[in-house]
Parts: sequence; C-alpha cells; structure tokens
Amino acid sequence: MMNRRTLLSLSASAPLLASGCAAPSSLATSAPAPALQGTGDLGVVIERAQGALTLVNTSRREAIGRVTGLGDLSHASVVFSRDERFAYVFGRDGGLTQVDILTQRITARVMQAGNSIGGAISADGSLVVAQNYTPGGIKVFDAATLELLADLPALTPSGERSRVVGLADLPQRRFIYSLFDAGAICIADCADPRKPRVTTLEGIGKQPYDALVSPNGRHYIAGLFGEDGLAMVDLWEESPRARRILGGYGRGQQPLPVYKMPHLRGWAVAGRHAYLPAIGRHEVLIVDTATWAEVGRIPVAGQPVFVMARPDGRQVWVNFSVPDYNRVQVIDTPSQRVVQTLEPGKAVLHMEFTPRGESVWISCRDDNRVQVYDTHTLQTQATLPVDAPSGIFFTARAQRMGF
Amino acid sequence: MMNRRTLLSLSASAPLLASGCAAPSSLATSAPAPALQGTGDLGVVIERAQGALTLVNTSRREAIGRVTGLGDLSHASVVFSRDERFAYVFGRDGGLTQVDILTQRITARVMQAGNSIGGAISADGSLVVAQNYTPGGIKVFDAATLELLADLPALTPSGERSRVVGLADLPQRRFIYSLFDAGAICIADCADPRKPRVTTLEGIGKQPYDALVSPNGRHYIAGLFGEDGLAMVDLWEESPRARRILGGYGRGQQPLPVYKMPHLRGWAVAGRHAYLPAIGRHEVLIVDTATWAEVGRIPVAGQPVFVMARPDGRQVWVNFSVPDYNRVQVIDTPSQRVVQTLEPGKAVLHMEFTPRGESVWISCRDDNRVQVYDTHTLQTQATLPVDAPSGIFFTARAQRMGF
Repeated sequence: MMNRRTLLSLSASAPLLASGCAAPSSLATSAPAPALQGTGDLGVVIERAQGALTLVNTSRREAIGRVTGLGDLSHASVVFSRDERFAYVFGRDGGLTQVDILTQRITARVMQAGNSIGGAISADGSLVVAQNYTPGGIKVFDAATLELLADLPALTPSGERSRVVGLADLPQRRFIYSLFDAGAICIADCADPRKPRVTTLEGIGKQPYDALVSPNGRHYIAGLFGEDGLAMVDLWEESPRARRILGGYGRGQQPLPVYKMPHLRGWAVAGRHAYLPAIGRHEVLIVDTATWAEVGRIPVAGQPVFVMARPDGRQVWVNFSVPDYNRVQVIDTPSQRVVQTLEPGKAVLHMEFTPRGESVWISCRDDNRVQVYDTHTLQTQATLPVDAPSGIFFTARAQRMGF
Repeated sequence: MMNRRTLLSLSASAPLLASGCAAPSSLATSAPAPALQGTGDLGVVIERAQGALTLVNTSRREAIGRVTGLGDLSHASVVFSRDERFAYVFGRDGGLTQVDILTQRITARVMQAGNSIGGAISADGSLVVAQNYTPGGIKVFDAATLELLADLPALTPSGERSRVVGLADLPQRRFIYSLFDAGAICIADCADPRKPRVTTLEGIGKQPYDALVSPNGRHYIAGLFGEDGLAMVDLWEESPRARRILGGYGRGQQPLPVYKMPHLRGWAVAGRHAYLPAIGRHEVLIVDTATWAEVGRIPVAGQPVFVMARPDGRQVWVNFSVPDYNRVQVIDTPSQRVVQTLEPGKAVLHMEFTPRGESVWISCRDDNRVQVYDTHTLQTQATLPVDAPSGIFFTARAQRMGF
C-alpha cells in the first residue's frame, strides 16, 4: 500500500540553508585547520534546553567543543557517519542537522518535518532516514548533502497519515519501522534511494510505540501501547512475518500509572538473555532469546526507562522514571541480581557505554552535569559540566547495526 | 613464579630511534597538514614482502597511502589506538611500530625482541603489550610513546624461557596469554604497569599454540599442539581455572598432514555456536558455547585456516591452507551449509569484515591484490593492487575486546 506514493511533499523538506549544504570537504578547507585527531573516541551530549551539542572525548574524558543552533532538542537522537566524523542530529521540531565534529560546525541542516522522533543511517553510510510524527512517514536523505531523495508517507488502511516509530537500519540499504496509528511494520528497501520499495506487515498489534533490532540484526521487536505483548519479526526468514511474543508484557493489564514509557532501543541483550524494562512495574524482565519466553524478573528501584547491557553483557545498567530518576542500578547478569545502587545526580536521563565498556557516561539533567563511572570499580572517573544534558552518543555507534 | 622478575632486559627493548619516539601531537603540528578526515572507516593492509603498509579507506574502497620501513612483516599483526588514529604493527623480527594513519608516518618504533608473534592494547588505550618467542615473554609499553614499562619473562617450571602465544586484552588493564613451552596460561594485571602482577594457571595441557577470547570477553580458549583438546578458562569465575574441552579436537589423532595450523583468533562465534577450523581435516566444527560440546561438522573445500563470522553471525567465511588456498567458502549459519565457493585469487591469506559486515576484504598474496566482496550479493565491489598482501586490519578493531 505504501509504495504507491513516493516522492511527495518535497516542499516540506527543501533545504532551509542552501549554503549550509555544501559538501563537507569544501567546508573543511576554508575553515581554520583544527588539530588533527582520530574520531573513534569522540561523542556528543545533547543539551536539551539550549538546542546545542557538547562535543566530548572519551579517552581524555572531557569536553572538546560546543555546537549551537540545532533547534528544539527536547527529544533528540543522533547517528554517525561511517567515518565517525559527522553527527546527524534529529530534533523534535523536525530539524535534521549534520555536524562536523572535527571542525565543530554545522555543515548542513534541513527542517524536514513538523514533529520528528529520530532517524537511522544505512550500513554503507550513504543514506540517512528520518522517522516523523507530523507529517507521518519517513524521509530518505543523501548522507553527504542532506538532499531529499524520497518521501514515504505512512498511511493507515483508511488513508490517514500514521505516526512512525521504531526506525532502524537493516543490511543492504533497508530500513524497518512501525506505524503507531496503523498497527503495521514496514520494511523500505532503498537500493534505489529515489524509488524505495516498501513491504508492509499488517495486523501486527495495536499502537506499536517503539522498537528495536537485536544486536545481530536478526530480530525486530515492537512494543505495543494498545495491548499486552510485543510484535516480533525474524528478519532472517525467507518471508518475514510478525508474531506475538510475551503476551503478559504491556500496559493493558497495568494497575500502576506509567510515568514514562520505556525506551525500547535500550533493551539489553546479554548472552542468550534479553533484559526488558517492565512497563509501570518496578521490575526488569529476563527473556530467553531462543524461545522469546519470560524466564525471570529482577526487582529494581523504580519504573525502568533504559535497560542497557555493558558491551560484554556482564552487567546491565538501569535508570528510572520520576520519582526515582536520581538512581541508577547495576545488575550482575550471571547471578541476575542488583549488585549496586548509585546516585549519580538529579534527573538521570540517559547512559552510554564506551565501546569496550570500561566506562559509562550518565547525564544528570537537573544537576547540569555528566558523570563518568568506571564500570568495574563503580567509582567516579570524571564530572563534566553540561547544561541540562539528555542523550549521550559516541561515534562507535557508526559501527553497530540497529542504531 | 613469573612475577618475581619484572623490569629485566631493558637493554633489549630500548628505543632504537630516539627521535622517532616524540609524542604524536608534536609531530602532527610540524608535518604538512593532511586533509581532515574521520578515522572510523580506515585500515591497513600488510605488504608482507615489502615490510610496508597500504593504508585504505573502506567507504571509498581504495588505497589512501603507504608507509614503508616496518621491517620483517612475514608474520605481522596490528592493533589500533583508542581514537582509531594510530596503528601498532608487531613484526616477526620483534619490531613494534606506531604508525600515524592521518599523517601517514611512522611516529615511534622500537626493536623489542628477536622474534615476536603479535600484541594487544588495553581497553583504555594506555598500554600496548607484545608477545614474544625470543626472548620468551611479554613486554608492556606506554601506548603514546612506546616507552618500555615492564618486561615479563615467561618461564617453564625449570626456569627456561617459554615462547608466548595467544595474547589478548582483558578488562581493567589485564592481559591473558599462553606459554607454549610451559603448558600454562598467565593473566598479567597491569593496573600498575611498571609492576604487573601475574597469575599463572599451570598444567593446562601440552603446547598451547594459539588462543582467543570470545567476543564478550568471558571465555579464553587455547588450542593444544601437543595433545587433543582445548584448554578453556571462564574469566567471569571468582577464581578462574582452566578446564579441558573438546577432547576429540586436535592433531594428536590426526592422520592427515597439517599444512598450516589454523589461526584460532579467527574462530567465529555466531549466536550460541562457535565455528572452529578442524586441524588437518576438511571440516569446520560446530560447538555449542553453552556446553562447549561439538554438535556438528560441515564439510569444506580444504584444511581451514581462518573461520570468521560476519559481524551479524549470519554467515561464516572460511579460507584454506595450501593447496586449496585459492578458494573461500561461505557458510550460511541458520542452515549450517556451504552456500557459495569463491575464487578470489591466488594464495588467500586473510579476510577482514567491515564493521557492520556489508563487505569483506580478502588478501590474495600471489595475485598482488585485495578483493572486496559485497557479503550479501557475493559480487566483487573493488579490486586494490597491493604487493603480496597478507593481514588486513580495520580501525574498528579498536572498539572490540580480545584483539
């Protein structure tokens, strides 16, 4: 149904700043030469109130610069170019901004939607895709220039626009995403990026609100807001189809108020188990990824928001919604117990592990700082002043699937 | 036994080129400014006959430079700095060379042993360690300057030197390695890098000849040359100990001549299975990583040397010893069958996947070229002329454990 209407609404996504869309290489030569540096240990921290980025170095554990003018970053996410030089920042207001971390400048920026919820980049680094609430759909951009290549409206069976959630990259310039208002999962094949071919899986469940791809790219799992359970697609099957898993998981039967829906992208896969935030309950669920059945629950200090595995899977770190969002708990996966409760600061919004997991960076919004912990000793390694920090994103994400 | 003798043999490892040991930052400012670039999509190819590196960009799939003067690279391996800017090249002749990929220059070089077999870098990027045959032992260097921090001889129970194999990094500035001549596995804790503390596990089996750490850093597995079976250490145990696994694996009962011992570091872990090169036999073994028991065998076209999983684990690629080293086979892991036989060129010595697995680079020594394949279509994407290429190493290794 969705592949009948490509390349619509070009006017909504024309570049706002034509001069800002020059190829990065030409800009680099005209700017004063920054110090040569590798980009494998860099990252960005969202300053949600200022619409700015603090640029950071994870080896020195310090800020190295700041970029302003990114619009409304009250809900923002970031992906990185394949060379780990450019950050693509998806703002809540529909702004898509390409930031050169080396020159510390905005190198391209478009207002591509009225309300956006994130994006993804293809494995080959050539395509950046935004997922939008208003107008509902996805848009495909040339990663080098932010030229709009395709506009794919997301539609309900009755032809209304649907909000898009849970976008992730798949191999071979494909992207997968869910339609909140249509109960569907779509796979867009952008082999020809100006004419994507969309496959729609319908009837996957009511109101998918977020989703994730497993670290190996095999399983796509969408949480359902409108009913209990999750929709899961095995992408390695010849003809992928959605099936329901974890019928007891969800908010339909939930007696507790839900202060904040968990972010599914943070779900942790460690060894053969996935660790999921219970919705509303003060629990982390343990799921066997071979059978996708629940095999245990771990009591935690609040309603979990992000449940994230250290890269080696030995630990899972959990933060919480209000009123418990001054805490972070550490789960030891072999014993499946909470082994430490930390209080990094006020309003912990996000966590990011360094690529090999020796450190974790935690944003404490209301203390205007980022705390860095040694994940082995659980001691503080550094404190960085950052204005109202929220998301933290390291360049190593460029080298992982499903981000 | 081994921690009694640190900081010996300083004379053997004093920097040969004092002027070449300047801190990288000072060199960078005096050199003509190279073009700004990210370093997440770069890599090096060993030119084994020339003692040189071809520097490559995996986004453009082309060579971007060349560095000569690295000595005997007939057996060489490479690790990368945490920022993905510097390559540390371990040559067979004991040369350890720090190469700045951005300036395309040698920034430090020491002759640290008479016969060396590779090295590793700590998760925090601060320490580089070499594993040596002659004199048998490991040496710990400051990663920034290549200053020698510690020299740890490896000794047999009778006090003779033992060759060291199977070195890998562990979390928290620790390194693990095996002693070929002592039947032991050692863990060196370099929290104080000038005074490492070594724990030795003795009686692990005869003649460990190579080893690997599983992708999550939990299991260290050493192959045994002197008997059948493998020695495995669960590093997450309170007091790690070696136990024997896969008693049927090895060359003790091997009726076939072994043309080349497989490289264990290439062993593939895909999902819950590990794929191992049989020794001498034309087979790849499938092992359940929960029980470490063999669960199947896949017939292949020759004696396997490298058995490597694509990062998503969907495929395992295999190359072979002489006389079958013009072939590469692709195993589909869900069906556990060979699905394709490729002939990339003469004398295939090594393979390296791009970080998200969309491409694989294959060195064809006797055709003096590197072939790049799309791992999904299995079509050639590029051909690069390189003189007698052997090992291929991409900077993304900096962000993985156990390399």
